[in-house]
Amino acid sequence: MIKIVETVPNFSEGRNKNKIERIMAVFSEHPEIRVIGCEPDADYNRTVVTLLGDPDLMQAALLDFVKRVKEEVDLNVHSGQHPRMGAVDVIPFIPISGTTIKECVEYAKDLGKRVTTELDIPVFLYAEAATEESRIALPNIRKGEFEGMKTKIKDPLWHPDFGKSEIHPTFGVVAIGARQPLIAYNIDLATDDEKLAGSIAKAIRKSSGGYQFIQAGPASLAERGHVQVTMNILDYKKNPIYRIFETVRMEALRYHVEVTGAEIVGLLPREALERSIDYYFDVHSVDISVSDLSLEDLVGYAVKYLKFRDFDSHKIIEAYL
Amino acid sequence: MIKIVETVPNFSEGRNKNKIERIMAVFSEHPEIRVIGCEPDADYNRTVVTLLGDPDLMQAALLDFVKRVKEEVDLNVHSGQHPRMGAVDVIPFIPISGTTIKECVEYAKDLGKRVTTELDIPVFLYAEAATEESRIALPNIRKGEFEGMKTKIKDPLWHPDFGKSEIHPTFGVVAIGARQPLIAYNIDLATDDEKLAGSIAKAIRKSSGGYQFIQAGPASLAERGHVQVTMNILDYKKNPIYRIFETVRMEALRYHVEVTGAEIVGLLPREALERSIDYYFDVHSVDISVSDLSLEDLVGYAVKYLKFRDFDSHKIIEAYL
Repeated sequence: MIKIVETVPNFSEGRNKNKIERIMAVFSEHPEIRVIGCEPDADYNRTVVTLLGDPDLMQAALLDFVKRVKEEVDLNVHSGQHPRMGAVDVIPFIPISGTTIKECVEYAKDLGKRVTTELDIPVFLYAEAATEESRIALPNIRKGEFEGMKTKIKDPLWHPDFGKSEIHPTFGVVAIGARQPLIAYNIDLATDDEKLAGSIAKAIRKSSGGYQFIQAGPASLAERGHVQVTMNILDYKKNPIYRIFETVRMEALRYHVEVTGAEIVGLLPREALERSIDYYFDVHSVDISVSDLSLEDLVGYAVKYLKFRDFDSHKIIEAYL
Repeated sequence: MIKIVETVPNFSEGRNKNKIERIMAVFSEHPEIRVIGCEPDADYNRTVVTLLGDPDLMQAALLDFVKRVKEEVDLNVHSGQHPRMGAVDVIPFIPISGTTIKECVEYAKDLGKRVTTELDIPVFLYAEAATEESRIALPNIRKGEFEGMKTKIKDPLWHPDFGKSEIHPTFGVVAIGARQPLIAYNIDLATDDEKLAGSIAKAIRKSSGGYQFIQAGPASLAERGHVQVTMNILDYKKNPIYRIFETVRMEALRYHVEVTGAEIVGLLPREALERSIDYYFDVHSVDISVSDLSLEDLVGYAVKYLKFRDFDSHKIIEAYL
């Protein structure tokens, strides 16, 4: 089976279109790497990039990417809502096909070494690649941001995994790691009452007693004029989408608020859709095997049963494999 | 506010009615302690007793109870399905009214000291009263049972919290501790397929990714001719009964199996009912404040909305306060 990893690097520029274009142009020199997403955000002053491809070619492309960002971004003159400690702040490797989380840890380490050796940028390994408990959660590493890292990195507890205990003067430092895929999933509620979305989020998320693999909170979509329950599903096998969707519906019932839609941010694996559509096939006695469905069919049923909006087969990882 | 604790001691006799009567007669000497339940089980060869009352009077009654059991039960000639290490195996103190879990830890310790001093029985403190991590879970302490405890207690890791490192020759040892109230809650499914109940249990219980405060498994009720999802709700505020009930219904839909009833084993606090009935009042736009309802009214709504069977106000702790 062909090896495919997903990576989701970001960089600290979300306003200057020319700069963003010059940075993204690096991937045209790596045509074997697919650019699935490029989402600049002006408030955050940050751009999130989603990439798919062969692990070795991915490492080469990311090295060029980090080099280009280093040339274009100076954090000494950067401001924005998003906390950041590096011009490229984080690079997660995610196993998609023919590869494992263990191998992704190795890819992360290999890239980390090269970033330090070839570009003189200190590297912290995080998530599954972390070398210490305190470095698993990215916010722990990032605390203090670019500005605070200048002194933090001299603390023996916060020496980087690769490189010397001194930040790069314009780039800062970067966290590189490996993690399992997650599904970013939001459910639309026909109300502008954010408190209500917060109550529902509380009912379903792990941190307040709900489902084990759900992170959730309220979000207000000012332009769309309604609120959402915004979520990460960390394990779609143990906490399938349909169960979260139906539990949110059940909670919304008491507020007499309609669940009007749902969206996937980024990508999700085909199997996550199959598992949930299969539930509704069972409920409605539809005698179709989900594994026989085309990606287009899966999209149709996801819209029908799960109320997905702005959804097409390009949201399904298998469209790129 | 008057202080009330619940305790749920058991003793290792579930067959000999005369013996059970002689043991239970001890409580007639303590009329201020209410005997809420006395459930002998022949298969287990064990009886579970549920008591409510003032903490100080409770300690006096339990000391007499342990003394009486010591006279009546010899574990050297006891057999039964239930694992046990003592003629009285376990005594949990549970805060009900006007008292806290911290105070219950102190009640447990006080009783423990007296059981050792006055009756020469070694005592392990467990659950919230545990003095070591390894003693929190009762099964850890009980492992090896009466027979194995003879040597286990000599291991420095398993010296008792009170008393010498030698079991009482006929009684064994006893675990005394403190824990929060839990609700033992079972949902009936109109099928004899235990595997199906197992799948639903897996969807909702913490250990396989479900709700944080739910323990659940399948149970087959041979005499009633159907299966159950059998549960403990460890925190009814964070995992209210209605949410568990509706989630089980949602999962059962895919199997086209009806949820026909539900039962509470032992007691539950009024507030647990109020929280769940309030959900259905919201859903059905019933404009009644749950706090205004009598216990009888609460029972009626619980039967209507939550399909409780074999349920009356004597299942509600407040009936005894």
